[in-house]
Amino acid sequence: MLKKILIANRGEIAVRIIRACRELGIPSVAVYSDADRFALHVKKADEAYGLGSDPLAGYLNPHQLVNIAVAAGCDGIHPGYGFLSESAEFASVCESRGVTFIGPTAEVISRMGDKTEARSSMIAAGIPVTPGSEGNLIDVEDAVQQADAIGYPIMLKATSGGGGRGIRRCDSERELRDNYQRVISEATKAFGRAEVFLERCIVNPRHIEVQILGDQMGNVIHLYERDCSIQRRNQKLIELAPSPQLNDEQRNLIGELAVRAAKAVDYTNAGTVEFLLDDKDDFYFMEMNTRVQVEHTITEEITGVDIVRKQIEIASGLPLGLQQSDIRINGFAAQFRINAEDPQNNFLPSFGTISRYYAAGGPGTRTDTAIYSGYTLPPYYDSMCAKLIVWAADWESLLSRSERVLNDIRLFGIRTTIPYYLNILQHPDFRTTNFNTGFIAANPQLAEYSLKKTPSQVATVIAAALAAQQSW
Amino acid sequence: MLKKILIANRGEIAVRIIRACRELGIPSVAVYSDADRFALHVKKADEAYGLGSDPLAGYLNPHQLVNIAVAAGCDGIHPGYGFLSESAEFASVCESRGVTFIGPTAEVISRMGDKTEARSSMIAAGIPVTPGSEGNLIDVEDAVQQADAIGYPIMLKATSGGGGRGIRRCDSERELRDNYQRVISEATKAFGRAEVFLERCIVNPRHIEVQILGDQMGNVIHLYERDCSIQRRNQKLIELAPSPQLNDEQRNLIGELAVRAAKAVDYTNAGTVEFLLDDKDDFYFMEMNTRVQVEHTITEEITGVDIVRKQIEIASGLPLGLQQSDIRINGFAAQFRINAEDPQNNFLPSFGTISRYYAAGGPGTRTDTAIYSGYTLPPYYDSMCAKLIVWAADWESLLSRSERVLNDIRLFGIRTTIPYYLNILQHPDFRTTNFNTGFIAANPQLAEYSLKKTPSQVATVIAAALAAQQSW
Repeated sequence: MLKKILIANRGEIAVRIIRACRELGIPSVAVYSDADRFALHVKKADEAYGLGSDPLAGYLNPHQLVNIAVAAGCDGIHPGYGFLSESAEFASVCESRGVTFIGPTAEVISRMGDKTEARSSMIAAGIPVTPGSEGNLIDVEDAVQQADAIGYPIMLKATSGGGGRGIRRCDSERELRDNYQRVISEATKAFGRAEVFLERCIVNPRHIEVQILGDQMGNVIHLYERDCSIQRRNQKLIELAPSPQLNDEQRNLIGELAVRAAKAVDYTNAGTVEFLLDDKDDFYFMEMNTRVQVEHTITEEITGVDIVRKQIEIASGLPLGLQQSDIRINGFAAQFRINAEDPQNNFLPSFGTISRYYAAGGPGTRTDTAIYSGYTLPPYYDSMCAKLIVWAADWESLLSRSERVLNDIRLFGIRTTIPYYLNILQHPDFRTTNFNTGFIAANPQLAEYSLKKTPSQVATVIAAALAAQQSW
Repeated sequence: MLKKILIANRGEIAVRIIRACRELGIPSVAVYSDADRFALHVKKADEAYGLGSDPLAGYLNPHQLVNIAVAAGCDGIHPGYGFLSESAEFASVCESRGVTFIGPTAEVISRMGDKTEARSSMIAAGIPVTPGSEGNLIDVEDAVQQADAIGYPIMLKATSGGGGRGIRRCDSERELRDNYQRVISEATKAFGRAEVFLERCIVNPRHIEVQILGDQMGNVIHLYERDCSIQRRNQKLIELAPSPQLNDEQRNLIGELAVRAAKAVDYTNAGTVEFLLDDKDDFYFMEMNTRVQVEHTITEEITGVDIVRKQIEIASGLPLGLQQSDIRINGFAAQFRINAEDPQNNFLPSFGTISRYYAAGGPGTRTDTAIYSGYTLPPYYDSMCAKLIVWAADWESLLSRSERVLNDIRLFGIRTTIPYYLNILQHPDFRTTNFNTGFIAANPQLAEYSLKKTPSQVATVIAAALAAQQSW
């Protein structure tokens, strides 16, 4: 088993990894920018090392991070999600310095990070992919010619992209010509590579992804799927496990496809195979995320498997210790990403000081967060400030419990997406599990609500005043 | 379904019931003494009514509570645990005023509350009970004579007692003579009834109790057992579900006994059948608790059944909707009662203001509490200020996760039992599930610990200082 782990991340995922380390009895080492010196992951870790004044540079510097790890006596590094979590270079630097990167090999990260190469691997493994260009595009004329063959609308994508970035929909040749240079510029800037490719645009699909785990002995299992169709501009807001939109046949099919995909690339550690489900109920491989995901929590809730713990065990060389038949789905879980954003103001980030924070509690309620009363959210990072995870035995109970839990949490000082989610919970299409990735855009009225005292607060005041006048 | 529910209780259980009401869409009405005017249950309920200046009288006054319920338009009352929860009179007053008492009938409460009558009912139903006196004792000479037949040590018990009160162990005739009047006085004072009876004292048994649910159509199921052997002076500290000390054969046997016991008395709603398990692995009926219990939470964790919700549904006349075969045990759960007490000072209550409270979080972590940062614990009530509930897939993971979670919660301003529980988690007999109700008394060294900064807090300070001097 690994002896000491550096966590090359911040925020709630750093806290999540520290918790897994503690449960395994492994000392944890945090890193932090100056802006993060009061962050919870720094308080919770066994040790913490500063990265300097730049809020981002340290978290993105493979050599600095590995130097700290080596100096602190760490034999493992967990990259979390975001930052360097899908950097093959980071995994390579770790390997070259004798520090175990807790994730797949650099080779697999590189292969899956290259979207055209990932497509080829999947085609070779017999996994359905959306019709698209053969490899990367040569130039704009090649793009136009291939788009004609595929048919509009098409998606123009950066080969190194992912997570919803470096991607444009084009509904016509003119739009394709307009966007071509733009996406190349974006891709060069964001990912350092200029290659782009085309895929047929599946309009308003459902986003279904499968959690997989693979050990170094070649055992691969899936932990069933998550439905991440509730997203705004490719950013997930609410995730569900299992998908309430699949039947058991579809569920087993997609699970098997994901395991086949993972085995085809000798995948190790935790990963996610993302699929699009079109309106004819056909699945298409979208991409593979070679890291732990924000929404791993809901899979933990329905399967009882501690995914972050498994990541560390697998990286330590332990066998999976689980067979596919050990994995059973128990109930339903939802994750609500509580973002410091104002849905009534185009989701503008609402960074600031959280004057008071009262956690939600009671049955079926889990919170993963790095905030606390008095904490100031630094403006340099992700606006997601907490993950509210709700479990219930069935879909109907999940809806009512989610509403209760979203009212139970109290966060003052910033605007959040909580009232927006309460509106989603009332929407008939959501309640009847009839939604796709177009749901948010199609329902601008979800941002209509008034920020007033809750009925219970008002009633309490009235009742207290009444009670004072009465003698029973 | 009931339309509006008054909660005749306070603290965490009142909050727990309010949460269940919200999930069912039922408005909730809180009551509060003056001492409780800033209590969380008052803030969380839809309405709240004052009970006056006496900290206890209002919570114990059936007529005042039912008057408030009727005036507020409630058709149901949930009594929680403690206070009037096992008062047949309260249930009767509710019935007579047309308000549904959320619990069993007054007749069943009365029958099970009378410990000699409960014994007779169980003997008639073929449930093993500890050898004891035939009904109540006539006088001290009768006691001495019957004790000789049963054999010392014996337990002298108040017929109306329960929850560990009105009970004395007598190791000899002299002790029995000494205690006889004392227990009668205690019983008269605490329960308003003077009757006492004898039972053979099973020395250091394990305390195993079975959660049952029965609807008004006569369906009764059990939700498996809890192990509550970790207790101090008959007060439970840590509860476990399922018991790590039973095998499946014992587990099924005790479940069947509990269902038979419940059916024998036409039991409805949630209840608990408590058994003692002696060192020969024989079970003996101890008592039946005709209410929701503090430790119902861990049964919810391992079965996924929301017990408080079921209580309300059953009281509303709905069928159970569950068969015995629907109930499966998933993993292990532990509940740690975080008491405002100082284990190093004979568990002296440590009431005061909670300056700061940070909830534990992450996987397998549930908190049921009514405290918040800045809340002052009134000195009039139970010292239990939070319930920390931990779930894990297996016993070993439960141990390591519990340790993590007990370190994760942060409570400042009062002394608590948290460091004491951390010591219990290290004890080999606890870790190897080899413990009984004598465990706490046999291990006074569990109170040996130093209240210092945690290693992580110290390390962070050192590391930060170090980091400031170094450039990586």
